[in-house]
Amino acid sequence: MVSDKILLDHGSGGRVSHELVERLFLPRFQNPWLQDLNDSAVITVEGGRLAFTTDSYVVDPLFFPGGDIGALAVCGTVNDLAMLGARPFYLSVAFILEEGLPLKDLERIVASMAKAAAEAGVHIVTGDTKVVPQGAGDKIFINTAGIGVVPEGIRIGGREAKSGDTVLVSGTLGDHGLTILSQREGLAFESPLKSDVAPLSGLVQEMLACGAEIHVLRDPTRGGLATTLNEIARQSGVGIEIWEEALPVRDQVLAASETLGLDPLYIANEGKLVAIVPKEEAEKVLTVMRKNKYGREAALIGEVTADHPGQVVLKTLIGGSRLLDMLSGEQLPRIC
Amino acid sequence: MVSDKILLDHGSGGRVSHELVERLFLPRFQNPWLQDLNDSAVITVEGGRLAFTTDSYVVDPLFFPGGDIGALAVCGTVNDLAMLGARPFYLSVAFILEEGLPLKDLERIVASMAKAAAEAGVHIVTGDTKVVPQGAGDKIFINTAGIGVVPEGIRIGGREAKSGDTVLVSGTLGDHGLTILSQREGLAFESPLKSDVAPLSGLVQEMLACGAEIHVLRDPTRGGLATTLNEIARQSGVGIEIWEEALPVRDQVLAASETLGLDPLYIANEGKLVAIVPKEEAEKVLTVMRKNKYGREAALIGEVTADHPGQVVLKTLIGGSRLLDMLSGEQLPRIC
Repeated sequence: MVSDKILLDHGSGGRVSHELVERLFLPRFQNPWLQDLNDSAVITVEGGRLAFTTDSYVVDPLFFPGGDIGALAVCGTVNDLAMLGARPFYLSVAFILEEGLPLKDLERIVASMAKAAAEAGVHIVTGDTKVVPQGAGDKIFINTAGIGVVPEGIRIGGREAKSGDTVLVSGTLGDHGLTILSQREGLAFESPLKSDVAPLSGLVQEMLACGAEIHVLRDPTRGGLATTLNEIARQSGVGIEIWEEALPVRDQVLAASETLGLDPLYIANEGKLVAIVPKEEAEKVLTVMRKNKYGREAALIGEVTADHPGQVVLKTLIGGSRLLDMLSGEQLPRIC
Repeated sequence: MVSDKILLDHGSGGRVSHELVERLFLPRFQNPWLQDLNDSAVITVEGGRLAFTTDSYVVDPLFFPGGDIGALAVCGTVNDLAMLGARPFYLSVAFILEEGLPLKDLERIVASMAKAAAEAGVHIVTGDTKVVPQGAGDKIFINTAGIGVVPEGIRIGGREAKSGDTVLVSGTLGDHGLTILSQREGLAFESPLKSDVAPLSGLVQEMLACGAEIHVLRDPTRGGLATTLNEIARQSGVGIEIWEEALPVRDQVLAASETLGLDPLYIANEGKLVAIVPKEEAEKVLTVMRKNKYGREAALIGEVTADHPGQVVLKTLIGGSRLLDMLSGEQLPRIC
């Protein structure tokens, strides 16, 4: 009898584990590397610089408007690679399943991963499945690690922001995090909230291809835009000033933030990037970003300063200044 | 006030997360890649073949005679790379922590990972930390992904076993799994059991350096030797025969197996490898293995046959034959 739920046996390494791999994972993630069924995948690379990254995904709920944990697990890691200017190529996937997880949920998640991987142009080449007894986990946790190739001449990183640079963001802020929190709180709004989860590697490739100099790229996930900008300010030893009037935030995200008492600047995004570029390149980069479906609402939101190094300042609508610190003391677990 | 337990905040991506990285992870895993604090690590490679692998570790208990989850997480992934003949270089590490985990447990695990990484000659270059609320996880789960370089001319894999080859094992069987299970059951034996967890990359490098032809290397982890040999028999389309009298098993492992009603051939090992080599190379390879501290008890345990392709047969002490199938229907969760 075939079970419609995940059993401890699915993680035994024995017959039932092999069936799961052969029936579910291989057909969905079809590629010659995975097909080999060795302990590691063997990939051939040209010499040069590779980007290597990892993230675990523990989002709750697993399925939400705009995406699910599978899409998140692929896009999040693809985006981390893209943020160094790398072209993502290979992913590993490791599942920690809780005994009793409906098999159809796993199938839906795997299908979503395959779709996101195809869009991002990456291959899932190696993997692992563990099953923990009921109560020792929570439905499903997914880890992905990724490898990408950094093209020659690219030098993008958190230490590269320079005084006089311009701060761009690829679209609206707070959509992912507020969607998850509203789902958990059972809140409904007139205009529905939707996660922005998306692979940004295509957008980044287009930004690089336009020839503009790009100093920093980073995706403002956990901790939101405010935390990301603080990281950059510290790493580069510069100040950053952003302008409240320029920040793109959807009305329904603002409404949800107010209801939940949260600031969208500290809320996770999963399909957005911050770009720091020389002032004279800003228009060119914005034009390119706006042509991509994930950059349509790109905006110039601030500038890098020599003042207040290591700090981020928000110029408010009413003309005041507010220090934007890193996320501190808030507890928004399992947002990604 | 500094907490002595993991809080949800440690996974927020904000200030407290950064403190954990800066105070605990960076000093222990010290290397220039991690120090950069970017979304990905950038590593420089020569052109050629890379091995890429991933595994999550969910072992319970976290600490056991001979090792802990940290040593396991480094050695397991290092060994998966080594099993393709690759020299392991870089690891990613991703923690899923349960709220309330004592910080001193995490510190002990991280120290153990750093020690195992140093022994294996690998660098932990990128990482991630998530925290789930109490009850949504179980203390700590660790994922590691690894990258290694496959030297030119090496062609090792599960499909390469040939009729007439010899089957070698690097040491005693069942030590890790029986140690974990005995700990969980609270069993004590006259001679204490001890996990065999160890990085095998050095042993493999020495085996390759002796110039012998090696067809298959694999570490018999979950599912044990029997399952591993079944995988190889299927992938290569050959039969495998092993001899009970030749199998190295410690007396205390045999005793524990009998008490628990388990067969050591199906029990996980974490510091052993199976090597399949041409008959004429067997003595040379065994001699090299026995000089390494992780191969001292290496033994020739069987042969590859053209008969019964896809199947593994055990020749018993009393002269009979028994089909050794893959692990099936047994439930030994959280053994690694």
